[in-house]
Amino acid sequence: MDAFWEYERALMANDLVALDRLFAPGPDTVRGDAGGILIGHDTISAFRNGRGGAPKRAVLEVIVRHIDDDNAVVIAVTSPATGGRGQQTQVWNRSAGTWVVTTAHVSSPAPAIGAATWRVVGTPLVAGATSGALVGRSVAVKDLFEVEGFAVGAGVPAFLAEQSPALGMAAAVSALLDAGASVTGIAQTDEFAYSIAGKNVHYGTPPNPAVSGAIPGGSSSGPASAVASGQVDIGLGTDTGGSIRVPASYNGLWGLRPTHGAVSRSGLLPLAPSFDTVGWLTRDAATLAAAAATSLDSAAQSSVGAGLAIAPALSALLTDEVREVFAAAVDGLARDAVSPAALPPDAVSPAALPLDIVEVDLGDLDELFEAFRMAQASEAWASWGSWVAAHPGALGDDIAGRFAFASTITEQQALDAAAAWDDARAKLDALLGDRVLVLPSASSVAPSTTASAAEIDVVRAGTLRLTCIAGITGRPGLSVPALWVRRPTSATPVPVGLGLVGPRFSDLALIGLGEQLAGRIAALR
Amino acid sequence: MDAFWEYERALMANDLVALDRLFAPGPDTVRGDAGGILIGHDTISAFRNGRGGAPKRAVLEVIVRHIDDDNAVVIAVTSPATGGRGQQTQVWNRSAGTWVVTTAHVSSPAPAIGAATWRVVGTPLVAGATSGALVGRSVAVKDLFEVEGFAVGAGVPAFLAEQSPALGMAAAVSALLDAGASVTGIAQTDEFAYSIAGKNVHYGTPPNPAVSGAIPGGSSSGPASAVASGQVDIGLGTDTGGSIRVPASYNGLWGLRPTHGAVSRSGLLPLAPSFDTVGWLTRDAATLAAAAATSLDSAAQSSVGAGLAIAPALSALLTDEVREVFAAAVDGLARDAVSPAALPPDAVSPAALPLDIVEVDLGDLDELFEAFRMAQASEAWASWGSWVAAHPGALGDDIAGRFAFASTITEQQALDAAAAWDDARAKLDALLGDRVLVLPSASSVAPSTTASAAEIDVVRAGTLRLTCIAGITGRPGLSVPALWVRRPTSATPVPVGLGLVGPRFSDLALIGLGEQLAGRIAALR
Repeated sequence: MDAFWEYERALMANDLVALDRLFAPGPDTVRGDAGGILIGHDTISAFRNGRGGAPKRAVLEVIVRHIDDDNAVVIAVTSPATGGRGQQTQVWNRSAGTWVVTTAHVSSPAPAIGAATWRVVGTPLVAGATSGALVGRSVAVKDLFEVEGFAVGAGVPAFLAEQSPALGMAAAVSALLDAGASVTGIAQTDEFAYSIAGKNVHYGTPPNPAVSGAIPGGSSSGPASAVASGQVDIGLGTDTGGSIRVPASYNGLWGLRPTHGAVSRSGLLPLAPSFDTVGWLTRDAATLAAAAATSLDSAAQSSVGAGLAIAPALSALLTDEVREVFAAAVDGLARDAVSPAALPPDAVSPAALPLDIVEVDLGDLDELFEAFRMAQASEAWASWGSWVAAHPGALGDDIAGRFAFASTITEQQALDAAAAWDDARAKLDALLGDRVLVLPSASSVAPSTTASAAEIDVVRAGTLRLTCIAGITGRPGLSVPALWVRRPTSATPVPVGLGLVGPRFSDLALIGLGEQLAGRIAALR
Repeated sequence: MDAFWEYERALMANDLVALDRLFAPGPDTVRGDAGGILIGHDTISAFRNGRGGAPKRAVLEVIVRHIDDDNAVVIAVTSPATGGRGQQTQVWNRSAGTWVVTTAHVSSPAPAIGAATWRVVGTPLVAGATSGALVGRSVAVKDLFEVEGFAVGAGVPAFLAEQSPALGMAAAVSALLDAGASVTGIAQTDEFAYSIAGKNVHYGTPPNPAVSGAIPGGSSSGPASAVASGQVDIGLGTDTGGSIRVPASYNGLWGLRPTHGAVSRSGLLPLAPSFDTVGWLTRDAATLAAAAATSLDSAAQSSVGAGLAIAPALSALLTDEVREVFAAAVDGLARDAVSPAALPPDAVSPAALPLDIVEVDLGDLDELFEAFRMAQASEAWASWGSWVAAHPGALGDDIAGRFAFASTITEQQALDAAAAWDDARAKLDALLGDRVLVLPSASSVAPSTTASAAEIDVVRAGTLRLTCIAGITGRPGLSVPALWVRRPTSATPVPVGLGLVGPRFSDLALIGLGEQLAGRIAALR
């Protein structure tokens, strides 16, 4: 079949014009691979433009199944230049005398290790206790925690090269092992956890299985991707400025940043200790609660019951599609429009919900964020400044730029930042009281891996103004996979998290509230 | 589309009758997944019967593209119960009023680690030297070699649980690292390397990417599968009775069992030291030669030049299809039917080939094998008998049975076996002299993972009678991916190795000869 070989030659030559011509025009063309399904000729074309050529390969065999004179299925067995076997199924259609691909499904051989997601994995790497609430469950440990026998890498190869194997386990790792969970491996992080993007210049960008071609968010990027991909049940991460809540939001996961100080940071590399927290990412609420219970002191935990708060001014930070789905969810909750019969059987009745919602004014959001950013940067420099200064070129541009800024903070500025942070915390605490603030976990859905730095900066600025509220107050922040954006170019709805910021030590109660709200929002649809 | 949901329900219920009915009858139906492509309704049906049900999953979205009234493409986004996203593309045809699947392509999310192939992997696990012949190349180390910081597991979890991390590197691992190769991970082996099947009851059966649904061969199963899958460039293995040559043959790889004693076994767990060798598996001859050169003493190496030998009696051990492709290759080589112009440009000219082929009579093959088997079993018991006796139930049935037999060997039987082995070696050495014996590497192509124990035993008996010749003589044995069986149910030709057994210390020369013969045989086709 001439058209097939023309396509193959164009693919190997990365002849984008020919490839575009050989794929059917219009919104119905479909292409799927391990990264997900792309719908529409232009979406597929943009993907090709962004990837810089397909991996080199040979075609070992071609199987053609003619449907009729103008339609055929072509199945090719491919052999990548790097070894192994792949498969590609294409449905071809001839219209106006020209053959074009209408649907394509591409499979490549799996690598030994997903290097963007993992630094090391085993079967398991560390076995857990033989009894406990988490027996049979698996964990991805962010590469900031000590795992006995392995050096901590912090997403920075030059740092890893200088470390010795850890002599013991970080407290949060031990807690999971003692409860019966096993450690599958050590998962990648943004460099020194100082980013919310999930892109690591050394190890790559972990896949986001919920959104084809999108970044996973970070800095707990590896644990989040591993959980979303079904490779483990629990991601053990950290959240300083959003590093659990943002990847949870982008990947459609549950993610908890606990009350600051409620979980031991023993055996954890610091970023900014006044804001650093140890938390978890999971696919369901029950697993999140069980994982969190291994490290939280149940005697210190409190309930939530004083109602919800929303801050209308935050909507200016959101993309249109996030603003819409969040507003629809809040409207639905506020209307109390759901009859008990319409709820899923395992949901609590609306009568049990803290339905009273008040609007609050958080004040100047830029000022809030600036207080957080200065205090965080000042502490980050205290943690890593001397190492960063001694290793020029060891970090990617964006993280290096953040440390460069941090290096300029004077002692006076640091004192001013601490004072501003104190003020902001007092003000927010007074405003929120015992209420749970409800807000989107991120300003946007997961941006494309090919988004420009400028596009990323815009959504980052919005997202950090949302996530810093928990950071400033030390309150727990939960991301609930309850909001979904529908797009014609995506086969499945695109997630954004419903964020809850509760009173200090309401961590476990917040998960229960999240389940209730998620059930209600699902029933609204 | 009703038929799609009927299919999905049947799949989840593992309703094999309904699934068979919903796939188009006849030899043209195609189904592909990560394990390879199956052709023909009955082949696909047999696969379904053997796997015991598809993994549980939900269908998140279904995209239907109608080709015409009687043909449609259905693309489904699936969500396995264990998390992540899969894709399935089906082409449906309606004939006589009934919709059936004519081609299907199934993708599932990749696991964190291929547990059947690997015990632990990293990015890399151990970095190699920054200069040397193997910079940029990656290695799978069979789990019999010491890798500093990791315990040796030998394919037996109960053994692994008792071990401490190794304090240094095995000599053969060091040699590869010093040449610049990096260790990607520690790869699975059959229990204590005492099998050629490649099935491990604890960790599973590594995939054979060259043959859909077939076993990979063992005991260097993990390294072989990792190399064939393109996950690494070099598999570091061992060969006592065929443990490199058999998986090389089954997976279409180059595999060298070196001259006994020519490569240091320091840091290697023994099976039967009089027969144990350290060797390599690769996708190409040049990489094999480079890997072998890291551990072989070049000053001790000799050339090959005195011609080839074949043993016609061996053909009684072969399956029909292997007998045919081997005979055709030998006939072609003997006829010298290739004109220089027909050779690939990088092949040597026929004039340079040792074309003189003599027929030899190896004597009673059962007697030869019995001498090998008894001597090997006696040494295997000396190596592991006390551990095996102290750990009842720790091994799978077939390996346990082999040790049970080994335990019955009396001192007198062991002395007799040693004497029989001495006799056999002297006889074979006299017979072969400086000639290179040419024989198939295995009696069959890779058997199906669903083959019965009796079927496996038949091909195993034949194969071991071929592979023991190198074992008895201590001569190097090379498997060259030069023979291919064509089957209507397989999309690609099925490999079987061309085996070469050369004079002692002709290891590197044997690789060169293998390249020449492979080039000639390829030109014959």
